[in-house]
Amino acid sequence: MRLMTRLCLLASGALMSLPSTAAEGMWTLDNLPLSTLEKTYGFKPTQAWLDKSMRSAVRLAGGCSGSFVSAQGLVLTNHHCVAGCVEDLSSQAQDLVNNGFLAKTTGEEKQCPGVEINRLEKTEDVTARMQKALEGLSGKAFSDAKKAEQSRIEKECVGETGDQLRCDIVELYGGGQYHVYQYARYQDVRLVFAPEYASGFFGGDPDNFNFPRYNLDMSLLRVYDKTGKPLANKDWFQINPKGAQEGQLVMTLGHPGSTQRLLTMDELETQRDLVLPFRLLIAAEYRGLLLQYSSESEEHARIAQTELTNVENGIKARTGMFQALLSKQVMQQKREQESAFRNWATSDATRVSTYGDPWKTLSDVQTKWRNLYVDYMMVETGFGAMSQHVLWARTLVRGTAEKEKPDNQRLREFSDASLPTVQAGLFAESPLYPDFERMKLGWSLSKLRERLGVDNPAVKRILGKQSPESLANDIVSNSKLGDIATRKKLWEGGATTVKASDDPAIKLAFLIDEYARQLRTEYDHNIEPVQKAAANQLAKARFAYQGTQVAPDATFSLRLSHGVIRGWDENGKAIKPFTDINGLFERATDYAPFKLADSWVAAQKKLDKKARFNQVSTNDIVGGNSGSPLINAKGEVVGLIFDGNIKSLGGTYFFDETVNRAVSVHPAAISEALKRVYKADHLVKELKL
Amino acid sequence: MRLMTRLCLLASGALMSLPSTAAEGMWTLDNLPLSTLEKTYGFKPTQAWLDKSMRSAVRLAGGCSGSFVSAQGLVLTNHHCVAGCVEDLSSQAQDLVNNGFLAKTTGEEKQCPGVEINRLEKTEDVTARMQKALEGLSGKAFSDAKKAEQSRIEKECVGETGDQLRCDIVELYGGGQYHVYQYARYQDVRLVFAPEYASGFFGGDPDNFNFPRYNLDMSLLRVYDKTGKPLANKDWFQINPKGAQEGQLVMTLGHPGSTQRLLTMDELETQRDLVLPFRLLIAAEYRGLLLQYSSESEEHARIAQTELTNVENGIKARTGMFQALLSKQVMQQKREQESAFRNWATSDATRVSTYGDPWKTLSDVQTKWRNLYVDYMMVETGFGAMSQHVLWARTLVRGTAEKEKPDNQRLREFSDASLPTVQAGLFAESPLYPDFERMKLGWSLSKLRERLGVDNPAVKRILGKQSPESLANDIVSNSKLGDIATRKKLWEGGATTVKASDDPAIKLAFLIDEYARQLRTEYDHNIEPVQKAAANQLAKARFAYQGTQVAPDATFSLRLSHGVIRGWDENGKAIKPFTDINGLFERATDYAPFKLADSWVAAQKKLDKKARFNQVSTNDIVGGNSGSPLINAKGEVVGLIFDGNIKSLGGTYFFDETVNRAVSVHPAAISEALKRVYKADHLVKELKL
Repeated sequence: MRLMTRLCLLASGALMSLPSTAAEGMWTLDNLPLSTLEKTYGFKPTQAWLDKSMRSAVRLAGGCSGSFVSAQGLVLTNHHCVAGCVEDLSSQAQDLVNNGFLAKTTGEEKQCPGVEINRLEKTEDVTARMQKALEGLSGKAFSDAKKAEQSRIEKECVGETGDQLRCDIVELYGGGQYHVYQYARYQDVRLVFAPEYASGFFGGDPDNFNFPRYNLDMSLLRVYDKTGKPLANKDWFQINPKGAQEGQLVMTLGHPGSTQRLLTMDELETQRDLVLPFRLLIAAEYRGLLLQYSSESEEHARIAQTELTNVENGIKARTGMFQALLSKQVMQQKREQESAFRNWATSDATRVSTYGDPWKTLSDVQTKWRNLYVDYMMVETGFGAMSQHVLWARTLVRGTAEKEKPDNQRLREFSDASLPTVQAGLFAESPLYPDFERMKLGWSLSKLRERLGVDNPAVKRILGKQSPESLANDIVSNSKLGDIATRKKLWEGGATTVKASDDPAIKLAFLIDEYARQLRTEYDHNIEPVQKAAANQLAKARFAYQGTQVAPDATFSLRLSHGVIRGWDENGKAIKPFTDINGLFERATDYAPFKLADSWVAAQKKLDKKARFNQVSTNDIVGGNSGSPLINAKGEVVGLIFDGNIKSLGGTYFFDETVNRAVSVHPAAISEALKRVYKADHLVKELKL
Repeated sequence: MRLMTRLCLLASGALMSLPSTAAEGMWTLDNLPLSTLEKTYGFKPTQAWLDKSMRSAVRLAGGCSGSFVSAQGLVLTNHHCVAGCVEDLSSQAQDLVNNGFLAKTTGEEKQCPGVEINRLEKTEDVTARMQKALEGLSGKAFSDAKKAEQSRIEKECVGETGDQLRCDIVELYGGGQYHVYQYARYQDVRLVFAPEYASGFFGGDPDNFNFPRYNLDMSLLRVYDKTGKPLANKDWFQINPKGAQEGQLVMTLGHPGSTQRLLTMDELETQRDLVLPFRLLIAAEYRGLLLQYSSESEEHARIAQTELTNVENGIKARTGMFQALLSKQVMQQKREQESAFRNWATSDATRVSTYGDPWKTLSDVQTKWRNLYVDYMMVETGFGAMSQHVLWARTLVRGTAEKEKPDNQRLREFSDASLPTVQAGLFAESPLYPDFERMKLGWSLSKLRERLGVDNPAVKRILGKQSPESLANDIVSNSKLGDIATRKKLWEGGATTVKASDDPAIKLAFLIDEYARQLRTEYDHNIEPVQKAAANQLAKARFAYQGTQVAPDATFSLRLSHGVIRGWDENGKAIKPFTDINGLFERATDYAPFKLADSWVAAQKKLDKKARFNQVSTNDIVGGNSGSPLINAKGEVVGLIFDGNIKSLGGTYFFDETVNRAVSVHPAAISEALKRVYKADHLVKELKL
């Protein structure tokens, strides 16, 4: 797994609610709240401003945002958005993660394997066409027709351009509107600059989602054109090291991943009472295990580092979400809004016949989902058998069985379109650390037993007379799946070959798959489609009720959010909106994660200590916004979004302007760092700093 | 800490609510629900039956129940209730915990250090006297007068008997009634029989609080009189190996510790939203740490065993309590009852002037408590610095300062009456494992930083420029407090000597104490007394509202609960009320905690496989009931209470007869085990089995 933490994608989502407070909303560029912008800030964006903004912002296909900041294809994004690339480019001899990277010339810039950048070129409303294709359909016929029409529109949009363009259907307001988005697609992306881990993630987990903050969470990439030359692009944002003043309008242009602001009360309570406590408790215990494992030796610390970072980030994020849902006021407000909306929908016979009672359907399906949830997570999702061997084995067992079926009868992750990804994963060269695997598998099998119960028939079949630890030991010691050739042979041999294997991981995978398929069938047949259909009805009703007065839920597509630079009040204490470089040195200790990188220690005397470092603003952002530029009305970069404060985590469910804050790197810190710490004169020049 | 898990005391508590369902209620013997007993079961206890029952039941002062089962002072209780004694009597050469213990003659019976047994001799209602003494008083005057009058009554009751008697004021219905309970006090208690850990805690944590179950959680003690002879006692219960049939009346006679059935909705929500998630999350992470530590070596497993058992037991218990409070139905029912009661109290001017609005007061104080809670737990309670060194240092720092004050101005735990206990703890010989201490302290300091925040001023003072791990290492490596003589010298030297010490643990304790005292003062002045006074008003109102129709909350004093042997329905699956010996052998594996003790393997062929092993009944019990006899209408032992099912854990807050079950050892298993596994012929004879 990649080190894509913080504002990278957190969850998968649905729709939108609350009457907007001033700054609420992640708006599409064709439906901006123009009167609010004008009334509140005196800002009237022109079409030219909008076009330039759209073409200056980019998306990292892996789940981040960014922007062009020079005429030669330089892209500004977060350090944590390129962490995977930096890891891939590192070797034992060259630890780029901890030492950082700076290409002195374009010749030294290194291609990031797998990084793809998309720039939105145009969008088109295809609502009428989609609605016509779906008219009168429901159930499977509906979803088949939808998939087919989407695919046709996307293909027409891409045309004969090969891999130069990418087109996606974006479904807004849960199907109230459909648009096709056309992106220019750049696959030659090279690393130009990344600071040291100690600078890019200064403060580590303790400071994650917190503020005051001192984090140079920036990096520079360069987009190359198909001839292998730096992309000549006319649309880009000038970085303005002066930044913005407190109270001044600032806008993010980015790709928020998903929000769930249209969940019903029943669905929110499932999150609060079941999903979040389950995830938090299992993660807390796993974190304890990883912490102790990491303390055993430097090598163990290295092996567990990425996993530990991900687990800790998940805990912080879910803690914030859990706290948000425990707010009685917010829940009461949501309850009243739901009640008003539901009254509107049910007080009129035409509406009743058009929308039905999706609340009731969603409530009933919640009960089913709650009953299924723990078993589903432990068995089908895999929390009850965390192990590289078992993962491979489960792919082999299920994948070989699935690929013998006709394409349209398979589980979706084994469709013809998905098989290349499945195979890439299965045949990837990954390091295997037996001790680590033994620990994870033994522990997770013991959680399987704990959560489902010793007397659960599936648990009895899976464990037999073994203990979780002895079974884990057997698999890690005796499975041959660590060998790629063995996996290839099994995959190519198909279901019969896999069935005949006596590899202990394969045998375990068969035992797991038996119950996992039962659970999956229940979910695929009786939960997901019911939930989706009802959510769709609800979204249509909502769209009829409110139209486009409120912004649609996030869909990892381009959005603008407006706000101002502003601190907040934390239990009576005023949190100021800016930190400065001086604060970084005051915060530093001799120990990670507060240990300064050597480059900063060396530059200490030359730096302007009063230069601003990080800042907060009221913009409504969410996971996926990482790397978004924060721009002013002139279209200058006055910040680089990299995080939200802890209170922003409730943003998945609702936006609370009093405490929800976006955290960004101040452009003065970018300028100071490039000039005086990293001495990147050529970049300073290119960026016109 | 002792291995006193499961039904030993879990929490500290308050009062009582819900209109009783059939089996609800832990009744005092002078206020039994006689009409229910007669109507439901046709049972009319005589005064002789009651007297004999009272004098046959006993209490283990450390937090368990038991009963006399022979005329020579044999006491039947749980294995887990004597685990501390068995540990104390063990040595490296003689591992009685894992090998078990059986005295072949009275001469071989070994005295249990510190175990005291109390038998209730008589009770007297002193309500009028207490109310007179308290008339018109409030605040400090009220609590001083109360303490003084209680102490007078207790002294009069004990009289000139020296340590032969013990008298306690028992406050029922939150002050609606006061009784004085006189106990015979036995301090020479010897271990007669304890099975192996593998038999007494078969199934370990996975089976804890679960059913079906196969746990020989029994032990036998013998009470000796002051001449050193086995106590000749005429009141005792005959064990009847036939047990009771499904649906038959069974009663527990035991000492339930505390229930909190009168908490207001606000208080319950504090438990559900703050207290239980906080405790569960911190325990989950600590458990992960301990599990990995234990996996590192056999020695580490041994060092961490008791701590891990306690942590796991706490997690299971709190998980059950948390789940109970997440029940929408139960909370709705509670809400309606509170509303009815509150209407009653506020709809009449006299009542309003008598009781005030304790709900409002409790709600306001909840807000304060919620704001204080996390800091209080981390700093004052000590979750943020878990370490033997720091514990000693905190006692030295605070204790030497406190003992220089007049007795009545000290924190209560350093009163003259408490100092012997403080000193016993401070000067106890305890093993110190540096690695273990380093792990616990480093981790808990990192939780302190996480929970309070890096920028909290107290955290900044405590950590300075150190990391949690480096500070922990410094203390464990350099503190001299591991040496008893050093601790003695500091204690006797008093506050000035302690202040002058440069021991790193003492220095840390001063830094902690500074903030801890602030928190403690806030709690002692502005939270606890307000809460207590309001709870008292509420209890008085409740008593006026319902009188003694409902049983009072548990107070670790003798109670009878009635019920029947009955299984329950678990998500549509019928759970039968009995298990048998055959099931034990079917459940066994080669791995702990499901590995059979050698004695059982050896006896396998001789045992009656159909003999019943464990059973469930509908009796309303709670922590403290461990070791209670389950008796039939004839006063025969038909079970030995040792646990509740997972659903019983909601019993702290409410009783749900459909799923709440008490778990007991069947007398047939006791008989088979003593006859055929342990060949304790002399005990079989004495017990008349």
